[in-house]
Amino acid sequence: MSQVVINDSEVDIVIGALHSDLTSFMNEWKPIFSRFHLIIIKDPDLKGDLQIPGGFKADVYTKSDIERVIGSSSSVRFSGYACRYFGFLISKKKYVVCIDDDCVPAKDNSGNLVDAVAQHVLNLQTPATPFFFNTLYDPFRKGADFVRGYPFSLRSGVDCVLSCGLWLNLADLDAPTQALKPGQRNLRYVDAVLTVPARAMMPVSGINIAFNREAVGPALVPALRLAGEGKLRWETVEDIWCGMCVKVICDHLGFGVKSGLPYVWRTERGDAIESLKKEWEGVKLMEDVVPFFQSLRLPQSATTAEGCVVEMAKIVKEQLGKIDPMFSQAAESMEEWVKLWKSVGSG
Amino acid sequence: MSQVVINDSEVDIVIGALHSDLTSFMNEWKPIFSRFHLIIIKDPDLKGDLQIPGGFKADVYTKSDIERVIGSSSSVRFSGYACRYFGFLISKKKYVVCIDDDCVPAKDNSGNLVDAVAQHVLNLQTPATPFFFNTLYDPFRKGADFVRGYPFSLRSGVDCVLSCGLWLNLADLDAPTQALKPGQRNLRYVDAVLTVPARAMMPVSGINIAFNREAVGPALVPALRLAGEGKLRWETVEDIWCGMCVKVICDHLGFGVKSGLPYVWRTERGDAIESLKKEWEGVKLMEDVVPFFQSLRLPQSATTAEGCVVEMAKIVKEQLGKIDPMFSQAAESMEEWVKLWKSVGSG
Repeated sequence: MSQVVINDSEVDIVIGALHSDLTSFMNEWKPIFSRFHLIIIKDPDLKGDLQIPGGFKADVYTKSDIERVIGSSSSVRFSGYACRYFGFLISKKKYVVCIDDDCVPAKDNSGNLVDAVAQHVLNLQTPATPFFFNTLYDPFRKGADFVRGYPFSLRSGVDCVLSCGLWLNLADLDAPTQALKPGQRNLRYVDAVLTVPARAMMPVSGINIAFNREAVGPALVPALRLAGEGKLRWETVEDIWCGMCVKVICDHLGFGVKSGLPYVWRTERGDAIESLKKEWEGVKLMEDVVPFFQSLRLPQSATTAEGCVVEMAKIVKEQLGKIDPMFSQAAESMEEWVKLWKSVGSG
Repeated sequence: MSQVVINDSEVDIVIGALHSDLTSFMNEWKPIFSRFHLIIIKDPDLKGDLQIPGGFKADVYTKSDIERVIGSSSSVRFSGYACRYFGFLISKKKYVVCIDDDCVPAKDNSGNLVDAVAQHVLNLQTPATPFFFNTLYDPFRKGADFVRGYPFSLRSGVDCVLSCGLWLNLADLDAPTQALKPGQRNLRYVDAVLTVPARAMMPVSGINIAFNREAVGPALVPALRLAGEGKLRWETVEDIWCGMCVKVICDHLGFGVKSGLPYVWRTERGDAIESLKKEWEGVKLMEDVVPFFQSLRLPQSATTAEGCVVEMAKIVKEQLGKIDPMFSQAAESMEEWVKLWKSVGSG
């Protein structure tokens, strides 16, 4: 990895606690997390007290904290994986790094521990190149560059505001795929970061991401919720929906999105066959969601992330609302989220 | 690499000979090339006889062969790197693999020799996924799959018709970059193949490519030629122009383009400072070429690669011709190329 100078005071690590015993998780991450401020949000549905080892600068938020802040708001829900969005809302930092609590640090091909935070911040601090694909991947990486034919006028790039990391061991597959290939493990460490081209849509996973909160924080919105949403990643699509919102907004505002390094090592288990009951719903929704976002264009009058989310919510309601009431609810959550973001930001 | 069954009779290896002594080049490639039919085109500007070692099924074509086939045609020129296009024209095979004569087989991270032909054919024989980005790269690779959120309706993919390989050691940089960083070497072997998303433009290098000749052969057209074009890669842009033509045509016809593996090891030297005189011209042209191709849309009536090239030539003449006469010449070459392709194909 190239050297990166990280200002500790610019980074919040947000952890959504879906498991009450975080001891092992946090001890594994201690060498990487201990210098940063942590925001831990306890899933409101989770019973029992959180177990958090010492040695961290951590603030913990529970159901009562959430209720105090959101007040009478009812359309934005913070249960399950969505609890982390409360952390995004109350953070005051420039960068947010967010990693699922069933992941531990990965090792690279040389056996070195991967510093996921440093890599995410490096991704966010170096430009992205969404307007022309560089075949040698990230041109700003040490030893890399722009290849022949790359226009010089595009080489300064644009601000990167979303960094999507990957997973070793258990990949982020959907329940049907996992059920079909229960023994499959992702063991290929691909040593690359790339900018996802403008107008290309992608499935952003919430497992291991970071973003520039000042630039696009409000676009990371908890909106699409399955009726029978579960506590395993493959039983949710909130992050997939959120990722498409952010990607469209980045394309509209001229920001970049990167994918690739850093990897984390995923250990979550769970019964994929059992999850199929829930996940098929999410799988079916994608058939409408993806073409919708692919053709979505925001008005030029939307010049901020907040403004883009509001405009997007209107279009979601109009175009997707008639297909499934879940989409209308998502649109309401998006509108409500922007109001919350503004009130928390000014409060 | 996944197992791939290659039918030898479906593959031509096309080599443009810019150096007269091919002994070392061909001996290095013998373990990989010897089972296939080779088409070797001698650069018409090259003096002296070609030196080709035994043990290959090779047909060699020289200036007189080219003149015999193209007859009175004058706008398509086959000198320098463009000599290889003559091989594309006369091949009768489904797949063409083409590698510069200053490259030798690379080794992967485990030290194994990379079979570039097998990897290219695998890339071409497995589907591409241009309509949605898969964060775990090629989902058809062994151990990989589509990630959560990837629509099932898009998982069958589309035919991949162009496979763009990469380079270790000397990367394909332009002369200014090479002059600025003479010691730079690309040593990162990124173990990945990905589909370049639809509508994303890229600088296709001709150093190490393969394509489905039946599907898009006519789109690989020798067209844009610099006034002072040289014999080093960084003194040409013919492949960059050709690559953008192919990419736009693939997007239009619903085909896919992949980039990544296989790597080759590049050894070409040359004086980058000296080349700057020539290459600046190419560098400047890209500032007009890239936006042109990014906004280029072909009429629905164009349903074949030939038809697309003809339509594209018209638009090039109209829109770029007024900027520089080199573009008008490129448009003429494109029209002439399609005529040649038809006459050779039917002859």
